Amino acid sequence: MKTMEELFHAQLQDVYFAEKQLVKALPKLAKKSTNKQLAEAFTNHLKETEGQVERLEKVFELIGRKVRSRKCDAILGIIAEGQEVIEEVDDDAVRDAGLVAAGQAAEHYEIARYGTLVAWAELLGLDDAMELLNETLAQEKKADQLLTSIAENGVNEAAAERPQAAAE
Amino acid sequence: MKTMEELFHAQLQDVYFAEKQLVKALPKLAKKSTNKQLAEAFTNHLKETEGQVERLEKVFELIGRKVRSRKCDAILGIIAEGQEVIEEVDDDAVRDAGLVAAGQAAEHYEIARYGTLVAWAELLGLDDAMELLNETLAQEKKADQLLTSIAENGVNEAAAERPQAAAE
Repeated sequence: MKTMEELFHAQLQDVYFAEKQLVKALPKLAKKSTNKQLAEAFTNHLKETEGQVERLEKVFELIGRKVRSRKCDAILGIIAEGQEVIEEVDDDAVRDAGLVAAGQAAEHYEIARYGTLVAWAELLGLDDAMELLNETLAQEKKADQLLTSIAENGVNEAAAERPQAAAE
Repeated sequence: MKTMEELFHAQLQDVYFAEKQLVKALPKLAKKSTNKQLAEAFTNHLKETEGQVERLEKVFELIGRKVRSRKCDAILGIIAEGQEVIEEVDDDAVRDAGLVAAGQAAEHYEIARYGTLVAWAELLGLDDAMELLNETLAQEKKADQLLTSIAENGVNEAAAERPQAAAE
């Protein structure tokens, strides 16, 4: 790689891979959530993520490149850590708290990547691509905030009540 | 795992592993940065990261646990992607832009994890731990903002001038 256009293209392929992986992972997070709001948040974010995949496909088109993904080790690691929560936490309420954390790790990864892509699209004068990427960035930030609010309004308290229960 | 204390402890071990990995990775990012401000930012953040490792060690002490790390696949993936930038980008200015992005991916991972740890420490009534974790969270957010500002004040423009140069 020698140009910003190539670096932008590589990053786009990375995020495309990440979104496709999240389309597979989100239903598992939703299925394992016992808090209703949390399950709904993951299910709704799955729909948003499918839209984000389509937006990325449009960006590939806008820059005249084929839709391709590039293995993204970061998202695989983040998803593996979410899987560990599912496998290793035996209490429903505590697992919910862990699933919120797993979701927020994924959101923050995407916030970082889309933030970069928006800045680079602007730099390259790719205004239409920038607009699409910005729409997704706003969705990721909202999804992260929603998870914080779900944690604060029930999930964390329910989980914190568990240690006492286990010690009885 | 069955309790929030155990989940908090597992997350602490994860972040401890991540910080130790970053202590090894940051000098490489600094060394490969050709923009002076960027190199300085990575070098300064290395010192901060060493302090963050110590803070985590204090938190282990506060909860009466031995200092241990737990393999964190996410940070390994994020660092691997930074390594790819170093290996695959041949132009100095474009590589600098990629290094900013790599740094911000790491910062955002930590922002997500420390955000979670702060909330869980509060929930568990671990006020001293919460304060320490909050100090680090504030540093990570500032480090992320500094990278944005360095990108906007030179790195990105220098990188964007390259495609024309390559096409001459």
